Amino acid sequence: MAAPVPPKTSAGRFFEDFRLGQTIRHATPRTLNGGDASLYLALTGGRFAPQSAETFARAIGYPASPIDDLLAFHVVFGKTVSDVSLNAVANLGYADCRFLKPAFPGDTLSAVSQVIGLKENSNRESGVVYVRSKGFNQRAEAVIDYVRWVMVRKRDANAAAPEPRVPKLPEAVRVADLGAACPRIDRAAFDPELSGSPHRFEDYRAGERIDHVDGVTVEEAEHQSATRLYQNTAKVHFNQFSEGQGRFGRRLIYGGHVISLARALSFNGLANAFHIAAINGGRHVAPLFAGDTLFAWSEIVETAALPGRDDVGALRVRTVATKNRPCVDFPWREGEGYEPHVVLELDTWALAPRRT
Amino acid sequence: MAAPVPPKTSAGRFFEDFRLGQTIRHATPRTLNGGDASLYLALTGGRFAPQSAETFARAIGYPASPIDDLLAFHVVFGKTVSDVSLNAVANLGYADCRFLKPAFPGDTLSAVSQVIGLKENSNRESGVVYVRSKGFNQRAEAVIDYVRWVMVRKRDANAAAPEPRVPKLPEAVRVADLGAACPRIDRAAFDPELSGSPHRFEDYRAGERIDHVDGVTVEEAEHQSATRLYQNTAKVHFNQFSEGQGRFGRRLIYGGHVISLARALSFNGLANAFHIAAINGGRHVAPLFAGDTLFAWSEIVETAALPGRDDVGALRVRTVATKNRPCVDFPWREGEGYEPHVVLELDTWALAPRRT
Amino acid sequence: MAAPVPPKTSAGRFFEDFRLGQTIRHATPRTLNGGDASLYLALTGGRFAPQSAETFARAIGYPASPIDDLLAFHVVFGKTVSDVSLNAVANLGYADCRFLKPAFPGDTLSAVSQVIGLKENSNRESGVVYVRSKGFNQRAEAVIDYVRWVMVRKRDANAAAPEPRVPKLPEAVRVADLGAACPRIDRAAFDPELSGSPHRFEDYRAGERIDHVDGVTVEEAEHQSATRLYQNTAKVHFNQFSEGQGRFGRRLIYGGHVISLARALSFNGLANAFHIAAINGGRHVAPLFAGDTLFAWSEIVETAALPGRDDVGALRVRTVATKNRPCVDFPWREGEGYEPHVVLELDTWALAPRRT
Repeated sequence: MAAPVPPKTSAGRFFEDFRLGQTIRHATPRTLNGGDASLYLALTGGRFAPQSAETFARAIGYPASPIDDLLAFHVVFGKTVSDVSLNAVANLGYADCRFLKPAFPGDTLSAVSQVIGLKENSNRESGVVYVRSKGFNQRAEAVIDYVRWVMVRKRDANAAAPEPRVPKLPEAVRVADLGAACPRIDRAAFDPELSGSPHRFEDYRAGERIDHVDGVTVEEAEHQSATRLYQNTAKVHFNQFSEGQGRFGRRLIYGGHVISLARALSFNGLANAFHIAAINGGRHVAPLFAGDTLFAWSEIVETAALPGRDDVGALRVRTVATKNRPCVDFPWREGEGYEPHVVLELDTWALAPRRT
Repeated sequence: MAAPVPPKTSAGRFFEDFRLGQTIRHATPRTLNGGDASLYLALTGGRFAPQSAETFARAIGYPASPIDDLLAFHVVFGKTVSDVSLNAVANLGYADCRFLKPAFPGDTLSAVSQVIGLKENSNRESGVVYVRSKGFNQRAEAVIDYVRWVMVRKRDANAAAPEPRVPKLPEAVRVADLGAACPRIDRAAFDPELSGSPHRFEDYRAGERIDHVDGVTVEEAEHQSATRLYQNTAKVHFNQFSEGQGRFGRRLIYGGHVISLARALSFNGLANAFHIAAINGGRHVAPLFAGDTLFAWSEIVETAALPGRDDVGALRVRTVATKNRPCVDFPWREGEGYEPHVVLELDTWALAPRRT
Repeated sequence: MAAPVPPKTSAGRFFEDFRLGQTIRHATPRTLNGGDASLYLALTGGRFAPQSAETFARAIGYPASPIDDLLAFHVVFGKTVSDVSLNAVANLGYADCRFLKPAFPGDTLSAVSQVIGLKENSNRESGVVYVRSKGFNQRAEAVIDYVRWVMVRKRDANAAAPEPRVPKLPEAVRVADLGAACPRIDRAAFDPELSGSPHRFEDYRAGERIDHVDGVTVEEAEHQSATRLYQNTAKVHFNQFSEGQGRFGRRLIYGGHVISLARALSFNGLANAFHIAAINGGRHVAPLFAGDTLFAWSEIVETAALPGRDDVGALRVRTVATKNRPCVDFPWREGEGYEPHVVLELDTWALAPRRT
């Protein structure tokens, strides 16, 4: 009698499949090229100068035009999906995301995650899994490091739960930890006409609010192509047959696509905030669907000089994105929750050149 | 008096325009770059490691990350359309398709076809044309070699028909003819975590059935962009004005896009079957339309060691794709025909690394 | 008390913000790579051989496969939008567009415009602005030079208007000014099978009309992706929320996308007219919307030898594109206006190889 054939397909990990301290090396490494940068731009609308033009990037001090920070983030994030969140009920949040090295065309990104927290829900049907994920380049240098936590179904509600362990996460990345992915900038070479704005670090003030004015309508083909570009296989973005029978009756747009669109819209007002140095936290307050039009506004929460650097300064930016509602009056929280059109609240540290 | 101006546009060849033994060099040669690979990935969802990562490809023995086999196939196929199948009533099938050399970014593919069979239909209004098409790289090395046959309209039903000649085609490519496009692989370097699966050649058995689980919904913009990427100009894929008045009232999705989507879905279960060495045959059982969700399952029909090679083995894989119907119960043939949701039956030889 | 925070977002220039002779350097420079070429091809359907294949381009005398002329044009045009036409009521036309240098993957394009004419409308609510825009590569060589004029709203109807000044524009680019972007071609190497047509410069005659036969239906995701690829931010193409409340209730397709689609369709009949040397003028007669199917036909208006060159000749081509109407009977003008399905009239000089 033949031995049983082992299962070939993966159903994804359930809550009880995770162990504290467990390390997961993710498939599939991915080499990024100039075409990825172009496609990312075509799908999201980026216009930040260093990511758009070799000439601009080299003039200010990059060895080449860097891959957009969020494109690198999505590629790293995408790898973790089949191992971490295939059975996720909800993506609850991310924190402590630091960009540690720029990525360039030709770089190959891979990802490794470690389970840093586990907590069963009181209904025993699911639990929260905390992972710290790191993206590496082909020289094994860490490029991105972040924590995310997801609610994952249990395979069996009666399965024993591990000791609850919730990691302590910083409310924001420390200023001293910013800037590792940004080479020293020649701020005199940061041409304000080519970059699209005369405003520098010193021109922004805590409390300042900026409506990013424009709106962008999302199509199914766009968010699907973007999400596949990142090799993110979460079913909810691609399968209308099953999603049509689900809670929303629609495919959900990958939250990362929403973040990228909001970032692209933010060019109008933050054109010189050319690099995202950290993501302090993010909340996908409500789902976005194809046909919706996304708007965004930002508040400068804080401004900070970087220790030892006079070339760039850090702006802590809270960007709020809405659907089907312009942001001229800065919609945000209402009562205990959010203004009903809000879909995203994102807290980042962005770098901008200092005055010459 | 001026000579008459010759016609500038092509109406395509009709059945009576083909001659046995005729050779057709096709327009337009096409140089593939990394952007084509990225776009292909964004449109179809591939995750096979050697095609995704330079590092992985080089580690196992490729000189660079190869262009996806099916992308190369579609580009070669696309060139033949305006010369062979512009007046096709139906694409009847392909056979004896062998991948002979890997293609890499920077390679330029061109195509040449030879008419190897002709058979008028009994109604005299059309006939079947058999062509052997070859794709070449810029060094005039054959990269792909395959036969397809199409039913082509006659310009004039009364036109004389040639002696019928139907080529003898192999039911499957011989095992001895597999592997030319696959360099010797360092199987110890084939990292199972990075590739997404621990399963090797020896883990698959004839008769084994694998449900690929996931489904993917196709949008008009996606299949049009993919088909244009291959410079395939078949009208049925692009012209809603004329197709709206046609048999289906809709644009048809290029069958090759369906094959690519099914291949991408097959990653879940066949992640290490990294190279398609041959397509034994394919049938587009029913059309796929935008809005449909594609599912797929595969059966391992046969496993074969490759003569003289201990690095890779060949899996003969029959992949069946359905629309709007999950494949958990392996829908396939029913009575004389097919289960009504089946859209594709594809018979390939895929290579997977052997155990170390 | 703190100084007031300066406004960070741009509302775009109004008519009274333009001054005769004013020079505007535009954001954002953009480096084009092979991925841009592939994506352009996937979105528009180009098949002209030199732009498709390195081998073909080099054989005839290019140092590399050039970036499609219209892709370079759209990228340069796109940069001017936020500075020139964000408050445009209408894009009235372009003229005197000359292609001066080929662009290649790796080149970085930037743009500068000069205001060369201003004329307030009689209602005093808007005015026409004429700009000459130039695209430069990273060596500060002019690549493209053209004039366009747009009707721009006034911020304040009572604002004083400048002395009217309307530039004199040539009805067509002079033959002596054509060909700067086209290297000397080895016409014997211009392979008619690979290029898709045996017809050379001498085969075309003034007055000849060519129906380009095929039609292509446009999807929202396609025109949005194309327009973002050019970093053209005109709101009317992206924001269904606001456009849904506007004149058409729909997003408008960027006129340049229509031009590119018509150019791609013209391959069927003009396959060897491989290079657009000049755009004499263009009129977007009516808007195109997603779901519409575009058709096109061309008339050879004039043929001209190029002074000092025996390798290529110039065809003056008037291409007319229609929506949802085949062009077999060459629809064009009717009475004072246009046949109601016409969306585009475009007058170009295209180069084709001469007979050997």
